Amino acid sequence: MLERLLITGANGSLGSICRQRLGHLAKTVRVSARRDLGEAGPNEELVFCDLDDKAAVEAMVEGCDGIIHMGGKAVEGSWETVKAANIEGMFNLYEGARKSSVRPRILFASSHHVTGFHRQTARLNAETSPVRPDGLYAVSKVFGEALARMYFDKFGIETASVRIGSCFPEPSSHRMMSSWLSADDMVALAERIFNVPRLGCPVLYGVSDNASTWWDNSTAGYLGWSPKDSSEQFRSKLDAEQTPPKHDEADAIYQGGLFCTDVIHED
Amino acid sequence: MLERLLITGANGSLGSICRQRLGHLAKTVRVSARRDLGEAGPNEELVFCDLDDKAAVEAMVEGCDGIIHMGGKAVEGSWETVKAANIEGMFNLYEGARKSSVRPRILFASSHHVTGFHRQTARLNAETSPVRPDGLYAVSKVFGEALARMYFDKFGIETASVRIGSCFPEPSSHRMMSSWLSADDMVALAERIFNVPRLGCPVLYGVSDNASTWWDNSTAGYLGWSPKDSSEQFRSKLDAEQTPPKHDEADAIYQGGLFCTDVIHED
Amino acid sequence: MLERLLITGANGSLGSICRQRLGHLAKTVRVSARRDLGEAGPNEELVFCDLDDKAAVEAMVEGCDGIIHMGGKAVEGSWETVKAANIEGMFNLYEGARKSSVRPRILFASSHHVTGFHRQTARLNAETSPVRPDGLYAVSKVFGEALARMYFDKFGIETASVRIGSCFPEPSSHRMMSSWLSADDMVALAERIFNVPRLGCPVLYGVSDNASTWWDNSTAGYLGWSPKDSSEQFRSKLDAEQTPPKHDEADAIYQGGLFCTDVIHED
Amino acid sequence: MLERLLITGANGSLGSICRQRLGHLAKTVRVSARRDLGEAGPNEELVFCDLDDKAAVEAMVEGCDGIIHMGGKAVEGSWETVKAANIEGMFNLYEGARKSSVRPRILFASSHHVTGFHRQTARLNAETSPVRPDGLYAVSKVFGEALARMYFDKFGIETASVRIGSCFPEPSSHRMMSSWLSADDMVALAERIFNVPRLGCPVLYGVSDNASTWWDNSTAGYLGWSPKDSSEQFRSKLDAEQTPPKHDEADAIYQGGLFCTDVIHED
Amino acid sequence: MLERLLITGANGSLGSICRQRLGHLAKTVRVSARRDLGEAGPNEELVFCDLDDKAAVEAMVEGCDGIIHMGGKAVEGSWETVKAANIEGMFNLYEGARKSSVRPRILFASSHHVTGFHRQTARLNAETSPVRPDGLYAVSKVFGEALARMYFDKFGIETASVRIGSCFPEPSSHRMMSSWLSADDMVALAERIFNVPRLGCPVLYGVSDNASTWWDNSTAGYLGWSPKDSSEQFRSKLDAEQTPPKHDEADAIYQGGLFCTDVIHED
Amino acid sequence: MLERLLITGANGSLGSICRQRLGHLAKTVRVSARRDLGEAGPNEELVFCDLDDKAAVEAMVEGCDGIIHMGGKAVEGSWETVKAANIEGMFNLYEGARKSSVRPRILFASSHHVTGFHRQTARLNAETSPVRPDGLYAVSKVFGEALARMYFDKFGIETASVRIGSCFPEPSSHRMMSSWLSADDMVALAERIFNVPRLGCPVLYGVSDNASTWWDNSTAGYLGWSPKDSSEQFRSKLDAEQTPPKHDEADAIYQGGLFCTDVIHED
Repeated sequence: MLERLLITGANGSLGSICRQRLGHLAKTVRVSARRDLGEAGPNEELVFCDLDDKAAVEAMVEGCDGIIHMGGKAVEGSWETVKAANIEGMFNLYEGARKSSVRPRILFASSHHVTGFHRQTARLNAETSPVRPDGLYAVSKVFGEALARMYFDKFGIETASVRIGSCFPEPSSHRMMSSWLSADDMVALAERIFNVPRLGCPVLYGVSDNASTWWDNSTAGYLGWSPKDSSEQFRSKLDAEQTPPKHDEADAIYQGGLFCTDVIHED
Repeated sequence: MLERLLITGANGSLGSICRQRLGHLAKTVRVSARRDLGEAGPNEELVFCDLDDKAAVEAMVEGCDGIIHMGGKAVEGSWETVKAANIEGMFNLYEGARKSSVRPRILFASSHHVTGFHRQTARLNAETSPVRPDGLYAVSKVFGEALARMYFDKFGIETASVRIGSCFPEPSSHRMMSSWLSADDMVALAERIFNVPRLGCPVLYGVSDNASTWWDNSTAGYLGWSPKDSSEQFRSKLDAEQTPPKHDEADAIYQGGLFCTDVIHED
Repeated sequence: MLERLLITGANGSLGSICRQRLGHLAKTVRVSARRDLGEAGPNEELVFCDLDDKAAVEAMVEGCDGIIHMGGKAVEGSWETVKAANIEGMFNLYEGARKSSVRPRILFASSHHVTGFHRQTARLNAETSPVRPDGLYAVSKVFGEALARMYFDKFGIETASVRIGSCFPEPSSHRMMSSWLSADDMVALAERIFNVPRLGCPVLYGVSDNASTWWDNSTAGYLGWSPKDSSEQFRSKLDAEQTPPKHDEADAIYQGGLFCTDVIHED
Repeated sequence: MLERLLITGANGSLGSICRQRLGHLAKTVRVSARRDLGEAGPNEELVFCDLDDKAAVEAMVEGCDGIIHMGGKAVEGSWETVKAANIEGMFNLYEGARKSSVRPRILFASSHHVTGFHRQTARLNAETSPVRPDGLYAVSKVFGEALARMYFDKFGIETASVRIGSCFPEPSSHRMMSSWLSADDMVALAERIFNVPRLGCPVLYGVSDNASTWWDNSTAGYLGWSPKDSSEQFRSKLDAEQTPPKHDEADAIYQGGLFCTDVIHED
Repeated sequence: MLERLLITGANGSLGSICRQRLGHLAKTVRVSARRDLGEAGPNEELVFCDLDDKAAVEAMVEGCDGIIHMGGKAVEGSWETVKAANIEGMFNLYEGARKSSVRPRILFASSHHVTGFHRQTARLNAETSPVRPDGLYAVSKVFGEALARMYFDKFGIETASVRIGSCFPEPSSHRMMSSWLSADDMVALAERIFNVPRLGCPVLYGVSDNASTWWDNSTAGYLGWSPKDSSEQFRSKLDAEQTPPKHDEADAIYQGGLFCTDVIHED
Repeated sequence: MLERLLITGANGSLGSICRQRLGHLAKTVRVSARRDLGEAGPNEELVFCDLDDKAAVEAMVEGCDGIIHMGGKAVEGSWETVKAANIEGMFNLYEGARKSSVRPRILFASSHHVTGFHRQTARLNAETSPVRPDGLYAVSKVFGEALARMYFDKFGIETASVRIGSCFPEPSSHRMMSSWLSADDMVALAERIFNVPRLGCPVLYGVSDNASTWWDNSTAGYLGWSPKDSSEQFRSKLDAEQTPPKHDEADAIYQGGLFCTDVIHED
């Protein structure tokens, strides 16, 4: 059991799930966001913090032996936003980890958009397939995975980079039938990441046991994570509610879907 | 839902199954064979057609936005027979598709005999393992897969080349314990092929979820097809009814079994 | 059904399981060990034999068309012990097989320690990953696999080299959550090995369907062996009884665990 | 040394080179074409033969222990032409080989157009990269390779399928800087094919030692063929004479170049 | 021939070589640095520019159809330095490229330090081996490669990411015997990058034809770049001048050498 | 420069070459064999030693920081001979190395016969292709490689396992055109093995730069060994002197040639 688990981005959709359901992993849970954290629970500490505030981030990380880093920009944004939250913020977090009096283990919420420009007819291996980021947000996640790997090789800080698929109550498009991740499966994955005796620095996709698959996580098989849910339960509802994309639309061509057609966001 | 689905070879064993169970895929089903099609069902059109009659095939294909091509010679035959039905016939079908006023999606019934000379102790990948056809029939299926791929790359016609294993009510030899494909699984595969937003041009083996496996379909994982049946249910009956082949018999050595020892059929 | 199945090491833990549960594979079962074989069962023959006694081993093997070779040293030992039991003994067994009036099929109990120095974060393929033996015992098993392969290529004697994981009633360490093999799964594997029409000379890991996996057996998929048990049933008990190893302990780093830190045993 | 070497297509550009420079491989050289073979050389026999005339082809093949099959259609053509020359013709040739009183070894002139739809930025392996034929001619060569393989596996007839690049005196486009094959290199390859003790049934690309390469022939390394020439000698001349294709033209995108944009030739 | 080639970092060691020897690639060469550019040559334009000045960078890039991006921090530095020069600077450069009235082709000077934590006994493939950056500088280069790939997939801007080894007049350590890149080979590589009809977006190592090799560039074989020089010419001199590192020193273990032991530079 | 280099088997053909040409690697060379070592050279020590004499071997190894282990049985032999010389002898040598006051680096003369049952049409990778030993001698070399690896992983003793091809003045069969290793190339390889700062524990084939190749040594590229000689210089002489093997003879089928048809040698 962890002494103190930090959950960043704890007011976001993924962060909220972690806050609600992963409290048992630690004696104390430090939940963090820029705002809107509500009341502190029984074993909770609230920390309000901007990720690009280096001193604040280092103070927040100090003393935590586990970190679930859900904070930062989670969709495409302007360069300034992405840079501050996902590039500056990652550096600050790992500097905090390096300087901390205890060595934390980290779950880094990367994104399947790091390989978003691969075709939906392709099959990817999390370790050997080249990245094909589909926007600035995705590029910032490639940066994050590389930074995490460097802090592992150089300083021994263990990170699981989880390329999260589409973690919503249910898939809202036909593309998400392949990328959907249930909350239960995400929670189980986090539990494994903090429970294995040795984590190393794996990269894997956070995706449920869907029928239609693009991603091969076998190199992370040692984690012992077996997703249980499948998006098939939602297929007939989805088919009833919307027409699938045409075969020449980005949402039918690329794993990253419409992110691939997004423009560069000017501030 | 398709406007008009053409099923060729609709009087054969596989074609009959498709006719009986896949009618819901289209508003109109055009069933075709050289003869013996019985009565037309409620949403059916009957077409009697020789596959080597170019004009007739092109007329038959016109207006169909889906094709299940089960027609042609389905076991070893003489060169003249194989050439007319499977080589000439495939060309005619794809020319029809190219010229049609609507662009069809095609399920092409290829055969596992395209890799029949591989050993039963080998494991094959549908995309990267070299072909090892075990007879003229199998060579004609290699031709068919190549033709389909060319019409995809050049004209955008999508085809799934399904290397059908042994699609019978139950396995009739120990070799078929590995190659058996249930009718239910075949039907489900066809449904997926016509339902995915983008098909591309995959090659995969049509085989159930048998315990003993030779084939890796993971590159076609995006189709979302998960076979449900297994030949294990028939093992004790099979063992009771027949002795397995000796370890030095073709039926125990090659994935294509006795096809590998067949002669060239002279007319 | 076999005429006569030889089980060596029949008084050991694995050998006893085979003796108790695999008698149905043969008309006669010849059980062997150096001592302590108890009473002969209805269709059993008892043979007391030292594996390094060439004449005795050859006599023991004569007439057997199936062999389950569980005999020999099963943990690290001194060079003299390992050499006599596992090197000399293997040679004697295969010479017996070569000279026998009937050609036997063999299940050779190799060990996952042949790849014990691979990291627990690695994923291994039974055919292509390099060996990394973790001691003299493990080196002797590499020798055994190579000898079996040579007798297959040169003399046609079929062997399945099963790299047995941890075959105990339940995992006794967190490392064994990945390597555990249930008795039921081992029995089922042996049945498949003696029932397939053609065995060839596969190498595979003997491991149950655990959640946390290190090993890919897909090249032996043709055997039709699907392990059914999982070590997950024991996780909470194990967690309650012991602390997992620290992340920098051999039992958390290497697949072979503490074998990797064992010294050379001097006689 | 061969007893009798048959060279088909001996009046074509490649066939003429073979006729002029490979006569030393055999005591007698049987040169064949439909017409225009000129005078017979000292150890030559002339045979006029249509490849789709089965009886004539079988008579022509009888008694030859070596065959260089350059005959057939060597560029895109109508279906009737391609089918007669390259499909019917190949079948006739291999039937002749199967029935011949001596077992011939065959060099089959396949074409790099069997993989013509791969990108110029891709690197292909002759054994494992999927075919992507760029027209009917290319599809007929896929058929030919498959037929040759079947006659090897079933009847032991050895064939080297040489996917010939661009065998001209010099490259006539920037694309051919990668695909160029010098006459000297082709002659040396043919010599190796008929001199190795055991040929097997390799597939390889016929291409010189150009600086810019798309193809990996390492699986055929046992042949001992090391091309010596390079297209670089022609680069400055080529650059002076023509502008390279624009980056979005087929000749800059696909390995098969303009073949990829060719239509289906209607008769 | 290019209309206008921009060389950034033109006062650095690599940039100077490019300036001196690659002027023939373009009608006009725009050389850029923060200072110290000397006199403008006959076809040169001088631009003084900070890479983190967005407007200045965009103005500098406007109108250039070729860019050699040698600018930025070329060794480990503090986060602020690396971020400004290599992260901010890359974004500014590619935004400039995207907005420019002509679409430039780009040579991006990445670094072999993106894989610096791989062992010297490992062999890497430029496309499929995972990155293992050895410091902040190396992480910034991973970012740069990802950004370039995204601008290619999304906007069609072609980049060659050249992971430059050790480009000095001669190797100054035993490690550099493997990583050395001669100026001649670098110049030849740049020429190929701007001369191929279609560049795509390759990643390759910039390394000479040294005897001791770590890197496989075969996926970029289509570029037609064959390095000619070898570090072996310097071996005896190097051996005479210095003792090789001990086998347990970072300079003997990691491909990135002493970069792997560098600390995080605090400002 | 080494302090003391031990050369075992120094009276054999390979050992003699090493003795004559590698003396410059060390201040003192300890040459060893059972007999026939002639006069000691200026910096030589002679040691007469049976490899299966544990105490003698340990004494011989003591104080050596380099070992070239050419001793042992170098062709097929009886089990007793092979076991004493190559199994017992290897164990004794590595125990000596482990106990020695200085840690030696070792060149272990393995043999290409460890993969002798692979076809001559196959291409092997030294690290990932499965072993296929062609006799007891070859099995003993598999044992040796595994033992060396274990002593590296467990005790840090570096070994290069060199699978020596056919090291004779010239090839004496057509098979050896592929496997030939010149003395010069072997000497250069040994120099590299003792000169690289870090050796690790590579496995590679000892083979010259022959035209016809079966083996891929690229994973050992870091050694910086580039063989210079080729067996092609002997081809015309060989062709004049002997007929190549027929295509169905072992010497034309298997990489190990006639070793594959050798019997088990009974004492």
